[in-house]
Amino acid sequence: MSYEFGFRVRRIDHVGVAVTDLDAALEDYRERFGGRCVHREVNEEQGVEEAMVAWPEGSTQLQLLAPLRPDSPIGRFLDKRGPGLQQMAMTVDDVDAACESLRAQGLELLFPEPKRGTADSRINFVHPRDAGGVLLELVEPAAE
Amino acid sequence: MSYEFGFRVRRIDHVGVAVTDLDAALEDYRERFGGRCVHREVNEEQGVEEAMVAWPEGSTQLQLLAPLRPDSPIGRFLDKRGPGLQQMAMTVDDVDAACESLRAQGLELLFPEPKRGTADSRINFVHPRDAGGVLLELVEPAAE
Ligand SMILES: [Co+2]
Ligand SMILES: [Co+2]
Repeated sequence: MSYEFGFRVRRIDHVGVAVTDLDAALEDYRERFGGRCVHREVNEEQGVEEAMVAWPEGSTQLQLLAPLRPDSPIGRFLDKRGPGLQQMAMTVDDVDAACESLRAQGLELLFPEPKRGTADSRINFVHPRDAGGVLLELVEPAAE
Repeated sequence: MSYEFGFRVRRIDHVGVAVTDLDAALEDYRERFGGRCVHREVNEEQGVEEAMVAWPEGSTQLQLLAPLRPDSPIGRFLDKRGPGLQQMAMTVDDVDAACESLRAQGLELLFPEPKRGTADSRINFVHPRDAGGVLLELVEPAAE
């Protein structure tokens, strides 16, 4: 494994799914698949209301993302593609080092500086063009 | 949590990404993100060559899917959407019970009977129409 780049991916943090109705989606995942809502918040800056859903085994969570307004990233995604898989996120130990390393390899990051993500994490995204069509989020969790 | 339906979701099993070149994608995830290829196989029936990529923490894996022929599911996906996120899979303890339960709730499954998936698992898919636009795979791992 290549940790020579100054950052380490620990795991797949979450899979993000764009939804139109957050409550209905949470209910579906709970009723049909036993998924438990472990976190919920509004992120005004990103224009999104989001919830994290977890299962008993495994630490990778499902992130349900509903737009606060049509001109938000999730609003535009829904408009263009409809509901469905929107992003994959990786837990990194150091998002600044990750961004520096990936930029040095020629990859484009969406934000000049990391922004606030779920639960006070710090996040950035690799442009899908540089990640095989995947909107790839980098998540440095908040210090415990 | 609702286990009254006769099956249990254990975790998010994997996230599936459609790629055009499996070797190049494996190299990218290894070089840039430290992902380790832990399994690789050809599934003639599904018309796909696939690889599973893992990180040190967390059990959810990345599944890279490359088409063996243009008229395969992944070939058609690439043709329509281009490379990117294609499926999310959940580990279930009993795929037959899961299919029965979900059908009883009115959800459409793609196969009348589970088929062989990665590493002798047994799999089926919920139709994206009935899963919020997500192609949702159900995976019962092979007995150890
Ligand atoms: Co996210
Ligand atoms: Co799969």
